Amino acid sequence: MKQQNDDVILLAHGDGGALTSELIDNLFQKYFTSDFIRSQTDAAIFKANSKRLALTTDSFVVNPLFFPGGDIGKLAVCGTVNDLAVSGAHPVYLAASFIIEEGFERTMLEKVVSSMAASCNEAGVEIVAGDTKVVERDHLDKLFITTTGVGWVSPEIDMGYHRILPGDLIVVNGNLGEHGIAVMGQRHGFDFDNQIISDCAPLNIIIKNLLQQCSGGVKLMRDLTRGGFATATKEIAMSSGRDVWLKEDHMPIAPVVQGAARMLGLDPLYLANEGKFLMIVDPKEADTILEILHHDSLGVNAQIVGEVKIGNGNVYLETMLGGTKFLDLMTGSPLPRIC
Amino acid sequence: MKQQNDDVILLAHGDGGALTSELIDNLFQKYFTSDFIRSQTDAAIFKANSKRLALTTDSFVVNPLFFPGGDIGKLAVCGTVNDLAVSGAHPVYLAASFIIEEGFERTMLEKVVSSMAASCNEAGVEIVAGDTKVVERDHLDKLFITTTGVGWVSPEIDMGYHRILPGDLIVVNGNLGEHGIAVMGQRHGFDFDNQIISDCAPLNIIIKNLLQQCSGGVKLMRDLTRGGFATATKEIAMSSGRDVWLKEDHMPIAPVVQGAARMLGLDPLYLANEGKFLMIVDPKEADTILEILHHDSLGVNAQIVGEVKIGNGNVYLETMLGGTKFLDLMTGSPLPRIC
Repeated sequence: MKQQNDDVILLAHGDGGALTSELIDNLFQKYFTSDFIRSQTDAAIFKANSKRLALTTDSFVVNPLFFPGGDIGKLAVCGTVNDLAVSGAHPVYLAASFIIEEGFERTMLEKVVSSMAASCNEAGVEIVAGDTKVVERDHLDKLFITTTGVGWVSPEIDMGYHRILPGDLIVVNGNLGEHGIAVMGQRHGFDFDNQIISDCAPLNIIIKNLLQQCSGGVKLMRDLTRGGFATATKEIAMSSGRDVWLKEDHMPIAPVVQGAARMLGLDPLYLANEGKFLMIVDPKEADTILEILHHDSLGVNAQIVGEVKIGNGNVYLETMLGGTKFLDLMTGSPLPRIC
Repeated sequence: MKQQNDDVILLAHGDGGALTSELIDNLFQKYFTSDFIRSQTDAAIFKANSKRLALTTDSFVVNPLFFPGGDIGKLAVCGTVNDLAVSGAHPVYLAASFIIEEGFERTMLEKVVSSMAASCNEAGVEIVAGDTKVVERDHLDKLFITTTGVGWVSPEIDMGYHRILPGDLIVVNGNLGEHGIAVMGQRHGFDFDNQIISDCAPLNIIIKNLLQQCSGGVKLMRDLTRGGFATATKEIAMSSGRDVWLKEDHMPIAPVVQGAARMLGLDPLYLANEGKFLMIVDPKEADTILEILHHDSLGVNAQIVGEVKIGNGNVYLETMLGGTKFLDLMTGSPLPRIC
């Protein structure tokens, strides 16, 4: 019999949506009073002499460990690299901690570790610290990895909610929902004719190129992991006190993902991505930014999907049928262990 | 039926002894080729402009979550702070990632989080980044925490195996084995009349005082967690290519811990400590160092316990009965989930 009340932790406390926010606000922030925690950004940025340093951490508990397009190791590296990159930091060093179930196959562990090394190589980062713990059989589901990343922030970078103005545009770098569907499909034994693979990829190179060529035009970036595009957009609207208006027919979603999501009863706008980010951009720079993105394999499907307007923290989706839909933080049936 | 072969991960791969070393050497180092990982120190130290920065990470899976003298939260903060401190770094920032079992009581989580905040306060560090994941009921035993720490290393600090010479002395800051016995006792329902409590404590203040007053005399420090005093000493002997000779009657071990360890079939020299460190010190500075330690509540039982000699990586214990015993890395029956 499951308890469903305020006294216990629910799966939805971990899905990156409304209950996760509630837990951070009402429990963690009560005791961890750092301004960094309060700001709820993807990475904490602090001064190290003249340079600014960024620090971020994430635990990965994805189930299954291997899925089309990736595995827990690739995810652990890319997720942490991407949190640094969207904060405007150049990722440099990672720490990785492994919690392993007794009896886990060594060849599987090696597969994960070699995948991490390949992703580090691709992103140009180095794992410099680590830890291994083993837990008795049946006290942990196979393998969890926690990665922590350190990066440098260039002096010219200035991103934040304070820069967001009415008229700014919302840009995403490509198709939404692929990671979520790839993992859910693998978990439930659907194969989608191998047409849906996770978008898991390190975003630091494409973001570095973008910021080098057009740093002033990018006002804020967010990666679109747990809670997906919709939750990230709602958080931006609330934190900036602006409204965001999105156009459903501008949303880059592959038809096969759209179909699979419908079949599974899921909304692609709330599905996790692991190689996607959104930007709030100056409208004067939007064309330049799109052109830069379109030249990178990780940005070929980049699109302008909406606009910031005066308001008070709401997100509206203009549907293809001509209606208007509110988008809120993810609530309701959680997708556990998607990353 | 348990598999007991090379193809699967065993509990002993996580106990900090010989099999943990084997896993790091043969699997992790095959793919993570950083010099920092190769050096197997408590923290990676790298340059950030003119300053040196230290990074360390640890997962905590202790069972039970609450034990005499501490809990998983206190342990997670102290363990990471201490890894930085024994590396000669001043701990400054922590990241904390929580993996929680669905159904975990919120009051328990709050107890852990408030304990972390108290330990951060005591150590003078700040939690600046975090993550929360929730895993389905029965797929994780209650709560695991991974903490990662960042600290600065003062320019005058120069510690390492290269500085160890024959004639150097081994100093520990107090009684050994208390954390291990406190956790094992709690797990198995022994109460030892409340006489054995974990030594869990942040060591950064005592170490900072010591290094400020006598930095040149301290050649190397190690905290004495998984694998205990004996494993740390053996690792130092092997890495420096020296022998270490220890005197059993100089080892600070409380009689009640000695008795409890005997009852449980454990050797206090291999038991985990969470508020103890060993130093290799210049014999000319040993008296000064002991005096400094004895003035701190975390060092009142500090002792010289042995000496470095010419040799090739062996550790010898001169027993109270006049015999000599080899000490090796921890092997054999592992103590899982001690931290």
